[in-house]
Formats: sequence, C-alpha cells, structure tokens
Amino acid sequence: MTILQLAHIPTPAALIDEACMMGNIARMQERMAALGVRLRPHVKTTKCVEVARQQEAAGASGITVSTLKEAEQFFAAGFADVLYAVCIPPAKLDRALALRRRGCALTILVDSLPAAQAIVAKGEAERHAFDVMIEVDSDGHRAGVKAAEAKLIDIGGVLHQGGATLKGVMTHAGSSYDLDTPEALRRLAEQERSECVRAAQRLRAAGLPCPEVSVGSTPTALSAATLDGVTEVRAGVYVMFDLVMANVGVCAPQEIALSVLTTVIGHQAEKGWAIVDAGWMAMSRDRGTQRQKLDFCYGIVCDVDGKVTDGLLLTGANQEHGIVSRGDGGVERDIVERFPVGTLLRILPNHACATGAQFPYYHAIGAQGGVQTWRRFDGW
Amino acid sequence: MTILQLAHIPTPAALIDEACMMGNIARMQERMAALGVRLRPHVKTTKCVEVARQQEAAGASGITVSTLKEAEQFFAAGFADVLYAVCIPPAKLDRALALRRRGCALTILVDSLPAAQAIVAKGEAERHAFDVMIEVDSDGHRAGVKAAEAKLIDIGGVLHQGGATLKGVMTHAGSSYDLDTPEALRRLAEQERSECVRAAQRLRAAGLPCPEVSVGSTPTALSAATLDGVTEVRAGVYVMFDLVMANVGVCAPQEIALSVLTTVIGHQAEKGWAIVDAGWMAMSRDRGTQRQKLDFCYGIVCDVDGKVTDGLLLTGANQEHGIVSRGDGGVERDIVERFPVGTLLRILPNHACATGAQFPYYHAIGAQGGVQTWRRFDGW
Repeated sequence: MTILQLAHIPTPAALIDEACMMGNIARMQERMAALGVRLRPHVKTTKCVEVARQQEAAGASGITVSTLKEAEQFFAAGFADVLYAVCIPPAKLDRALALRRRGCALTILVDSLPAAQAIVAKGEAERHAFDVMIEVDSDGHRAGVKAAEAKLIDIGGVLHQGGATLKGVMTHAGSSYDLDTPEALRRLAEQERSECVRAAQRLRAAGLPCPEVSVGSTPTALSAATLDGVTEVRAGVYVMFDLVMANVGVCAPQEIALSVLTTVIGHQAEKGWAIVDAGWMAMSRDRGTQRQKLDFCYGIVCDVDGKVTDGLLLTGANQEHGIVSRGDGGVERDIVERFPVGTLLRILPNHACATGAQFPYYHAIGAQGGVQTWRRFDGW
Repeated sequence: MTILQLAHIPTPAALIDEACMMGNIARMQERMAALGVRLRPHVKTTKCVEVARQQEAAGASGITVSTLKEAEQFFAAGFADVLYAVCIPPAKLDRALALRRRGCALTILVDSLPAAQAIVAKGEAERHAFDVMIEVDSDGHRAGVKAAEAKLIDIGGVLHQGGATLKGVMTHAGSSYDLDTPEALRRLAEQERSECVRAAQRLRAAGLPCPEVSVGSTPTALSAATLDGVTEVRAGVYVMFDLVMANVGVCAPQEIALSVLTTVIGHQAEKGWAIVDAGWMAMSRDRGTQRQKLDFCYGIVCDVDGKVTDGLLLTGANQEHGIVSRGDGGVERDIVERFPVGTLLRILPNHACATGAQFPYYHAIGAQGGVQTWRRFDGW
C-alpha cells in the first residue's frame, strides 16, 4: 500500500493488514487441526463480524464472547453457537434466556453454587434447560473452581439434578501472559490441559455428564505439546497479535495485523520529539509491555507502509497527543526533516484487544491495497 | 438512591451522581467569576451534550474540544463557539472549513510555521479567514512554542499577514497532574499564566493582534492566586473529578461524580477476592494513580450507594473481570458473606476521561433518585 491509499482516512484510525490477519488465522487453525481439537475463537479481541467470518471460513467451530452484547450482536449476524465465557450473575439470566429462545445455542458459565442454584431456579420457573459449563481454575490467576475441590462436584450435581444441561468444563490459563520462554509456556499449557481434564474426569467419575473440555489462551494454544482429553481450544488475540504477545514470544512484530494510523501535528525539535494525533484515546491506556522484558511504551513507530523504524517509540501519550521519540532516551536530531508536519505513521499496539476497543471502525487494507471499513461494536 | 433504583441497569455501567456533578460545575464557575475570567470547559472529559448544557447554563462561555468529531457533534447540538485545542495538520483543514461554513465559530490551533503556512494557503485558496490561536509551551510537557522563541512572532506574522484572524495564545500546563502540594500547584499556575501573558505581550509588541489569552488545566485553574492578563480558562476533568485529582489534592473522593456500577459474579474465598463484571474494558486501562502518593489500582470500591468501603480496591482487572480485594494486601475473610454473588458495587475511577470513554452511555442519577440515560459519543 502507499501513502495515497491511506491519505483519505481521517487519523487516528485503526488499520488491519488483511493478509497478515489471514496468516494469523490460518496458523492457529492449522495448529488446532494438527492437535486434533476444535477452535472456538474469542471474538472479544475484535468485536467485528467481518473478522469472525474469516475465522469461521477457516474452520472455526462456534465463537467465544465476553459480554452478552457480543452474544446478541454476533447471533444477529448469524453466529448461533456461542460460549459466554464469563460467570453469569442471576440478573443476566433473563437476557441469556431471551437469546436462547430466539434460537441462539448460548452456553453460560458458573464457578459457584449460588450462581448454579440461580440458573436452576430460573430454568424451573421458565421451563427451560440452560446449557452450562463450569469454570475451572487451572493457574490461580482469576476465577474458577479448582479441579480437586469438592465444590466442583457440588456445582455439577446442582446443575444436572436441577435440569440444566451440563456441557462440560472450561479453563483459561491467563497467567500465560506473564511468561516469556517456550519451556515455561509449554509447562503452563500442560498444566491448563491436565487440570481441566482432571476436572472433567472427576465429574464423570461422579456420574455427571461432561462432554466438553475447553481450554485456551493464545500463548498456551501456540505452546501445547499435546491436547489429549481436550475437545476445544479458545484463543482471541492471535487474530491480530500485539507487542505483549511478541514479548511473550509467540509472534514477531511483523505478524501484528493491527496498527494505528496517525499524523504528525508538530515537533519539539530540541527534544527530538514528533507530536502525533494518536494519544491514549487511540492507543488505549494499555501499558502491558511495561512489566515485560522489552517496554515499548505506547507502541512501536512504523512508517506509513508498516515498516518498523529504527528505535522510535510512542514514548508518551495524552488524550489526543502522542510523543514519538527514541526509545533509548537519545535525541532524534533530524526529527523535523524526517517526519514533517502532515507525515503519516503507523503505531503497533501493546494490546490489540484494548486498542481495537477505542475505535468504532477498523480500516482493513486488502492485499491489493483496497481499503474496507469494518464496524466493531462497543458497550455491554 | 437505593439498590432497587439501580438494579435494572445492566452492569457494568457508568453512573453520574448529578448533584455531585452540579456541585463541581458550580465550584469551578464561581472560582472563575471571582478571578474575573471566562470559563471554556473542555468537553473531551464527557463528550456528552447533557453535561455540557449544564456547564453552559452555569455560565460557561463556549467549549473546548480535542477532536473535530467533538466539534461537529457539539455544533450539531447547538454549541457554536468551539476551540479545537490540538494543533491542526493540513489534512484536517477541509473538515474545519466545512464546519465554519455551516456557521460554527471554530478556532483552530498551531505551534509551527508549516501548519500556519498551510492554513494561510488554504484560506487564500478558499477565500476564507480562519480563526487561529497559537499554542504556547508553558511547562515543557508537550506541544507549543516557548514564549521567548522567535518562532512565536514568525507564526503570528505568517497568520496575520496571510489573512487569518489571529485570535490569541493558549497554553495548557498539563504537568500539573504530576504535582501534589498546594504550593507547587500555585507556582505552576502562576508560571502557566505568566508565560502565556508574556507570549501575548510579545505578539502585541510586534504589532500583531492578540485579544485572547487562554490558559488552563483543572489543577492550575483551582490553584491560581491571580489570573491577570488572562481572558479565559479551560478545564475539563473538574466536572467529574477522579482519583488522580484526589491525589493531586484538588478534590475529595466524595466529590467524584463518576463511578462504575458492577455486579459480583464470583469469589476466591481463600484469597479474599470478590470477582466483579467491571474489568479494564469498563474502567479503562488508566493506572494514573500508580505513580502518585496513593496507588488505588483500578479504583476505590464503594457500596451501591456510593459509600467508600474500608480499604477495598479493584486490585486487578482483565477485559471483563475485576478483582475486589484489600488494598493493603490483607485477606478479606468474610468476602463471600459480605458481597454475595449478585451484589451491586460502585467503583471510583482513576481517570474520568478514560473511564467515561469506555461507555456509550452515562446513567445519570438525579437528586431524587431518578435515572436518565445520556449518550456520549466516540471516535474521531
């Protein structure tokens, strides 16, 4: 693509390099096929129907969502097999039920007895059998029941005996984002697999149904040696990748499909700064690389064609101002001549889920250079 | 207000305590009146017409915006006097011109000769006199020309002789966010005032017009001892306030008008965690208090009525999960009994501008407990 093809896009704008995205989709799908599991992509990363359709076309089975709004929007766009992968509180059951009654094969999630009891009570009152999974805590980072806890069987029993359809167990080893060696990632992937399989085996041994064993995060999905006993994998950020994933070690910067197009609006020449119109409102406030081995501040600066510059970062960000300067603290002496006012640049983001969320649209750049506008939605 | 009045709002949701907001608006307006200057609120904080109308009703003169989208949306809602307070690159002049031709008194901003020359060239080609201000750098934190620089007069000369209307100078002492004592804030407020006035005096001494001298940030506006020579003040976040401002020392937590309503969805009892449905997608990734004297993690936890709890913070956040636990690292032993699944809580945010931006709507809670939905817009 050239400057001319991007020059009509108002900046800041979220660009998707479509060829790059398609490569990321194919890589994950092929890997899951080789491991003998289904892939249920987490669409919270992009909240974009056009992206999810490409994932489906490549072989994905159903989608994972993080909000009921996502479930509703994707169901309206034709995605009927949906896992809502956040434990549901009682007040959200009416909305889940409405979706199911419209024909959405929505699976909901619990990790506590009160939530399971509320689902059973709602199901009895409404004469409806919800599809439910139990969240397993495989790495201690957030929600879920431990595979060994008595509570696991209690929850399964309440659901099954209460008339809900116990679909299985799921876990997310989110602590994989904190790792950065292949060995550690492989170990965590195996822990995620084995803990979730263990939970399934305990439920089955207790006479409870557990057809599905769902695991996943982008780093563990790309690091697992085997997935024996697992039926499906969930992963989200792989579709775009980002600098956090590059630091984790599961992608290279040139595999990052999302960037923010920005315009130089001024300089502080003696400091070696170019000031651009991508601040934190465009990049998000995500500083995920701050605690990793390489801190990219608010992102890596590329030229308009996406080529990484030699050491320039978005070192600072206010709401609508970004500061481009050397990441090593040096002064870029020729910043004014190199990037005059009006120059277009692209910034690779720390976190594709957070940066994408700042934009109502993506601008998808096709392999032939054509630009399409893809809506993404927000809110709950 | 009571749980019943909030229970029908899907969580997470952005709540505005209207009485609190009105108090904040009155406080700033009265202070500006006492200092003898006009107030031009920065509407980037809320991007919400209903909020801006209250600021106007209280006596504000015009608005400040950070994007042309804001200018367009607020002009469509009847706000005609608009300062676009980010330096404009040449590619955005067509959009600015379109607004002016529709009757918007839009003032644009520059801090460089190339941008000034582009405005003049556009004005000559379109036979249009743009209203332009020059940005002054009063504290070295971001954009602007130093008051003493020769470039200031050069830019003023290019604009004035080129047929643009040179409206004056403006500065924003954004480094005030890094301070936390009244003395330091007073000093910076005086520096912001005196540098901007000095720039105005230099322009006038060079025979150039400079009717307006515009300064401001919430901390300096609330700290200035005098504003001699200043004609208007801009401030934004004061309308909501937030925990960063509480740490700066210009508000108390109970003056924060914005909070995020959230539902408890689970627990990790042995860790003393309640898990809620407000993650960083709701709170934003803004960790502005991290480098301040009190680090509030992702926010202070309040009960559903807005009463601050004893030491509970949103200590962790993933996309749609937040972790409520003790800020001192201790284990809240009775977390399950205290906040059962389904409990509503409210979280005070680090940064009102960033948290608000995560929501398509505010839910405004009136003094009588009634709830109104106020749209806020996004994008560029």
